[in-house]
Amino acid sequence: MTFGGMWAELAPVGRDAATGGYHRFAWTPTDAVLREWFRAEAQRRSLDVTTDRAGNLWAWTADPDAAVAAGRPGLVLGSHLDSVPDGGAFDGPLGVVSAFAALDLLRARGTEPRRPLAIACFADEEGARFGIACAGSRLLTGALDADRARSLTDAGGVSMAEALAAAGHDPRSLGRDEETLRRIGGYLELHVEQGRGLAHARDGRGAAVGVADAIWPHGRWLLDLRGRADHAGTTRLADRDDPVLTLAGVVTRARSAAERHGAVATVGRVLVHPNGVNAIPSRVTAWLDARGPEESAVRAVVADVADAAGTAPDEESWTPSTVFDPALRDRLAALLAGPDGAPAPVLPTAAGHDAGVLAAAGIPSGMLFVRNPTGTSHSPEEHAEEADCLAGVSALARAVEALA
Amino acid sequence: MTFGGMWAELAPVGRDAATGGYHRFAWTPTDAVLREWFRAEAQRRSLDVTTDRAGNLWAWTADPDAAVAAGRPGLVLGSHLDSVPDGGAFDGPLGVVSAFAALDLLRARGTEPRRPLAIACFADEEGARFGIACAGSRLLTGALDADRARSLTDAGGVSMAEALAAAGHDPRSLGRDEETLRRIGGYLELHVEQGRGLAHARDGRGAAVGVADAIWPHGRWLLDLRGRADHAGTTRLADRDDPVLTLAGVVTRARSAAERHGAVATVGRVLVHPNGVNAIPSRVTAWLDARGPEESAVRAVVADVADAAGTAPDEESWTPSTVFDPALRDRLAALLAGPDGAPAPVLPTAAGHDAGVLAAAGIPSGMLFVRNPTGTSHSPEEHAEEADCLAGVSALARAVEALA
Repeated sequence: MTFGGMWAELAPVGRDAATGGYHRFAWTPTDAVLREWFRAEAQRRSLDVTTDRAGNLWAWTADPDAAVAAGRPGLVLGSHLDSVPDGGAFDGPLGVVSAFAALDLLRARGTEPRRPLAIACFADEEGARFGIACAGSRLLTGALDADRARSLTDAGGVSMAEALAAAGHDPRSLGRDEETLRRIGGYLELHVEQGRGLAHARDGRGAAVGVADAIWPHGRWLLDLRGRADHAGTTRLADRDDPVLTLAGVVTRARSAAERHGAVATVGRVLVHPNGVNAIPSRVTAWLDARGPEESAVRAVVADVADAAGTAPDEESWTPSTVFDPALRDRLAALLAGPDGAPAPVLPTAAGHDAGVLAAAGIPSGMLFVRNPTGTSHSPEEHAEEADCLAGVSALARAVEALA
Repeated sequence: MTFGGMWAELAPVGRDAATGGYHRFAWTPTDAVLREWFRAEAQRRSLDVTTDRAGNLWAWTADPDAAVAAGRPGLVLGSHLDSVPDGGAFDGPLGVVSAFAALDLLRARGTEPRRPLAIACFADEEGARFGIACAGSRLLTGALDADRARSLTDAGGVSMAEALAAAGHDPRSLGRDEETLRRIGGYLELHVEQGRGLAHARDGRGAAVGVADAIWPHGRWLLDLRGRADHAGTTRLADRDDPVLTLAGVVTRARSAAERHGAVATVGRVLVHPNGVNAIPSRVTAWLDARGPEESAVRAVVADVADAAGTAPDEESWTPSTVFDPALRDRLAALLAGPDGAPAPVLPTAAGHDAGVLAAAGIPSGMLFVRNPTGTSHSPEEHAEEADCLAGVSALARAVEALA
């Protein structure tokens, strides 16, 4: 199955016909279709698929434990197949499809490495259903507590434990997975860029592929804004306690604080209760996503928002600054040098990734980015040109040859 | 069945165990239970139940058409059984239960009027499902166009035509209903007050029952705020087009405009799309409810909100100022005089009612309000004391004796 063939097979799965965006949430029937697709691609290539304690999938070219015993643990390529609500086609799937395609390329050239190679598909990377991004990799490394994960609930009140059980994965198995971690000698994730760094690289000439430098510290906070339900017509303005007004203050303040502190802040998810046209709401729940080059900038934004909210935000997740292995980063940039010999562009990013979670757990990890002409992501408009995607596959294959 | 018995039977229908509020939306299975309850209460009293073209229910004590032929059309008491999301127990049901109880009281006294009496249950008064308040009475009088009504959709995309058909009411039957209108010689609606006018009446001594004077002009507007979906982490602030920021401006502006123009304005319903924590939304839909003592005040608020939204709000409904029949109003106030001979308090309201729709269509209509100690309505906390409710029943019976 070629890159284009794999891409075409994934295209309809979880696609919203009206917007063209994707709704691929963890542990749903759509997710099961994607996992089945992954197993089928692995089987086509005679890879052995294992599922770890967190439900992440691993497709190995050879016995990973024998390699561990020989002191040369395998190299893992991968990404995720889940999406944000109404997300794009590339964020996640590009990394998984490119990993399969890179293996095909190596085999076609007869240069498959003797060190075992795995292709990983991480579960619930976006956190779109249960609120915690990179849930699969965080569970794997123990950065997310198993009890906490099991008790997270989705918008319909279904817990992660219930969702796992419904999808056929025993929720009791969650917990740091030493056996799997031991097998990962290194991790390399290819991802569509989520900004315009590569489009503007090399003095505007651009570059198809670049290398990640660091991930900005970032987190998510839940704001529980309470008011008092009342009649929209008969309640005097002075008697109102309307949490939508508090929300307006929070949104405005988050933006101005982000501007002042050189960070970014977004209120992208809002639930109004009871959400009736002629009733003053009793409660608004809103989520703040904040990121910045330094932890202090992000913390300053959150403090300003807490002030506007009149209540302390609940920190749902926090990821400190992640700097990818500098030696690996420089080696990748040199390997992927342009025709003029200049190393590939090295870029920071404000997006979280499983590679960041693994790097934070001490696993040598790196990332390759593929050019995104508009920088748009988490949107049906997210795009990468096919030629750039194929350049990404070729870069990934070259990196594997050098590293494994 | 006593007042308390009827109240107890209705109490569990559509009740949210967590909040204690009600979710009784038009043409749902819950609505069918309420309608069945109405039919059973009518049958207990040997009343003939008819359904009009809009699906409103009428329980008649005698042949209404014979009374029309004799030049003395009947008197109608009533209200509605549907609710706003997470609404209170009294708004609507108090009027229907009190009408049945008033009939029982008259019969127990042996003073049932010879002029036919009906108890009406109007469909979809709150407009919680399809966005148009008083949909049943507006369809009856022709104030709401049948084609427009049929094409209204709920949050799940179900049209009113589909909902009517699913509930067993032929959607083709919608349209102004001359036969039913001809039968209504007058309409009297008892309702829980939705402010604290009666609690503060008579120099603070309060009154259990009052009479409506007028309904403020009021309307609903839909705001379609467009932005551009993008990644919450990687999109620079300067590159964002975030409709949640526009919403914040709209909410703040609606409040300040209402203060300036002596009106009230509420943004009680908000839908964010796609509503993902780590995605800048592509679109926010918000509804504005605005009311004021004069049409000019309401129009000024809407103009200010349009300016903040950068787009023209779509007027979903508009109800001009409704002044109830002054002679009827004064007669009711005199009939319900207190022990000191002072007439019952006469109060304006900012809430819309079916009585206002019928009054606007030229039907002599009046309203009685029952004291609400806190003024809270459209909330699980909505309340009226039982003694005040029974005073309401007694007042309604007295009004019927005098009018019919």
